[in-house]
Amino acid sequence: MAEELTGNCLIGQTGGPTAVINASVAGVVAEALNHECIEEVYGALNGVHGLLGEDLVDLAAESQQAMRGLRYTPGAALGSCRGKLKKPADFERVLAVFKAHNIRYYFHIGDGESQETAAKLAETAAAAGYELRVIGIPKAVENDLAATDHCPGYGSAIKFIGATVKELSLDADAIGQGDLVTIIEVMGRNTGWLAAGASLAKRRDHPNDPPHLVYLPEVPFANDKFLDDVRRVLKREKHCVVVVGEGLVDKDGNYVSVETSASDAGHAQLGGVGETLKDLVEGQLGAKARVARLGVGQRAAAHLASKADADEAFLAGQAAVKAAVNGESGKLVTLLRGDGDAYTCETGLTSLADVVGNLKRLPKEWINEDGVSLNFQFFRYATPLIQGEIAVPYENGLPAYAKLGKDSVDKTLPSYEG
Amino acid sequence: MAEELTGNCLIGQTGGPTAVINASVAGVVAEALNHECIEEVYGALNGVHGLLGEDLVDLAAESQQAMRGLRYTPGAALGSCRGKLKKPADFERVLAVFKAHNIRYYFHIGDGESQETAAKLAETAAAAGYELRVIGIPKAVENDLAATDHCPGYGSAIKFIGATVKELSLDADAIGQGDLVTIIEVMGRNTGWLAAGASLAKRRDHPNDPPHLVYLPEVPFANDKFLDDVRRVLKREKHCVVVVGEGLVDKDGNYVSVETSASDAGHAQLGGVGETLKDLVEGQLGAKARVARLGVGQRAAAHLASKADADEAFLAGQAAVKAAVNGESGKLVTLLRGDGDAYTCETGLTSLADVVGNLKRLPKEWINEDGVSLNFQFFRYATPLIQGEIAVPYENGLPAYAKLGKDSVDKTLPSYEG
Repeated sequence: MAEELTGNCLIGQTGGPTAVINASVAGVVAEALNHECIEEVYGALNGVHGLLGEDLVDLAAESQQAMRGLRYTPGAALGSCRGKLKKPADFERVLAVFKAHNIRYYFHIGDGESQETAAKLAETAAAAGYELRVIGIPKAVENDLAATDHCPGYGSAIKFIGATVKELSLDADAIGQGDLVTIIEVMGRNTGWLAAGASLAKRRDHPNDPPHLVYLPEVPFANDKFLDDVRRVLKREKHCVVVVGEGLVDKDGNYVSVETSASDAGHAQLGGVGETLKDLVEGQLGAKARVARLGVGQRAAAHLASKADADEAFLAGQAAVKAAVNGESGKLVTLLRGDGDAYTCETGLTSLADVVGNLKRLPKEWINEDGVSLNFQFFRYATPLIQGEIAVPYENGLPAYAKLGKDSVDKTLPSYEG
Repeated sequence: MAEELTGNCLIGQTGGPTAVINASVAGVVAEALNHECIEEVYGALNGVHGLLGEDLVDLAAESQQAMRGLRYTPGAALGSCRGKLKKPADFERVLAVFKAHNIRYYFHIGDGESQETAAKLAETAAAAGYELRVIGIPKAVENDLAATDHCPGYGSAIKFIGATVKELSLDADAIGQGDLVTIIEVMGRNTGWLAAGASLAKRRDHPNDPPHLVYLPEVPFANDKFLDDVRRVLKREKHCVVVVGEGLVDKDGNYVSVETSASDAGHAQLGGVGETLKDLVEGQLGAKARVARLGVGQRAAAHLASKADADEAFLAGQAAVKAAVNGESGKLVTLLRGDGDAYTCETGLTSLADVVGNLKRLPKEWINEDGVSLNFQFFRYATPLIQGEIAVPYENGLPAYAKLGKDSVDKTLPSYEG
């Protein structure tokens, strides 16, 4: 046992929300309240913005109802952020905020890139001789963190994608007459984890079930092969369902589709690969094509979240607190899969420094030789992650999600201009 | 009581599927089996294609499991079609198919326009002295049939839209900092029923809840007013959620957004109004915008179907059979709302001839003066339609939808070239 450290704890959420990122907050709060050395339980509003701006809220003051609701509420209940802490002065400022509120435990929920912030905060505190324990909690619908078997958020995302593929396929099957191509574009800047997850919509031992073709960023895209693939499926089936990851690249490693945003001074951003494939199909094959771009629904559809995923997100939050109380710092909670045939999951710890910029790609050996389908290794990996449904309460016909009261913690410092 | 007519019955599905169009098939089959005068229960594959091609399947031979599964299975289980019967020879051919299989009851599930086919089939049979009873069963996610209080399919569509608006809004609220505009594009070629339904996501007595702005085809669109609306919301809220119907028109009645399809010789089709609004926001306000185009999910998301809607779709199928057995023909089943405070719904009948081309628009007096929100009259109308959830069975983490066996009925006629 490490020396006991008494003080307050703080939680921050960063990056794109997931269906279960709030379950990790609930896990931290539930566990924090078990430890007498943790006196107050605070949340930082909008991630690093709240850290810099001293915008803290009292999470122990929230109703138990609301905290329970966090286990099935999408979005980021504390608010998230896109930015990171940049200059040394930013880190000094956050340290001042921590000191002002006697924060001794900081829990940072975010993807691989954003955990850099957590790692640097731990260093800053150590350099200043301020006793602080920092633990990162992973979240990523794209499942691309290297240090963990899988990421909280991914299971729910592919459960939604799989169900949607089933439903859109039934619709297309009803009106297809051998000439309808349904193109479903999913997220995945650099990896095909989400696109691969769509293949869970296939029934076991029905390889010809939709999705018929899955195009992954891991497999270089070629127009001719694509058109041949679609032709082959249209000949065999009444219609063709294509799933494509937004980060699809050609043989030279260039994105197949890039669009520019008017707001951002012509800064190129990913997107629209579905439309590119549609143009190919309609222009070259004379077939009909329709595009569904699943967009933010992939990470927000908590009404269809995976119970396994939500439970593990909660568990990761609990594990973070236990680790910190036990004296750990500068670590990321990971999910570890058991070796047995039946799926089991427990948590581990890895160094935050090892996670940053370390991308996990879909293993090439999980992709079939045709380049457009996944083999049993992927199914064995992904199937346990989508198991179970959450009994989201409904009110007046719609999911009743939780809303925090967000009692502000009094500020004691001058404001920070940055 | 009408004279008893003994023979076989046939069901056809047409147009875009809905989350509950198969519940109507289940209703027809369940009721048909109650009547001894109905001997065989057949389905036509792919609507009018099956009628012309003599492609019939035996629905009584399906397992009870599968028929029960139809109550929560999206798509059109019998297959749907886009086309209609055109020339007199087509109608004569269908009559020959009916005679060959002793079809005396025909049930046509479709939207207002497609019911023209049902009406003409009744006429063709009458002119030929062939005793046939034809009953139409309404379905339309767009809710635009004039003769009925509402259409099966609409309630489930707006339940999905409402839930999705809630979820995307929570996501946007988490990362919005006063400059994020979420634009959600929903279906609705000519009417704003679906866009209006998005407003069910607002909590009662919280008019500032998302969706903040709803743009309806019923209200002429003006760029300046739109930009002012968005500016006002961004000033008040952390972010702005806009819902827009694809059929939005300007003051001259022209569609705000039309796109051309490469497959269709440059034939213009609706779509992309969300992108048009995004360009306005980013170009004129310098705010960030993201577009979610809900697409086919609106009509296919049976995992989130409304129980009230599915039950009424089933009821409409049952009512069609009862009416036909009672001697009715050339009629459409309608849904009638009771006068009392508590919502009740029973079925009625109207002439098929009265339905064709008779579009029901959203009443102007249900739209607030601001032109971007709905008043209590809409909420009173729409809220009952999304009540209740269906216990869709899950298998291995995903909804387990039904698949019909589709035992073919032997063909007896030469093939038809049309």
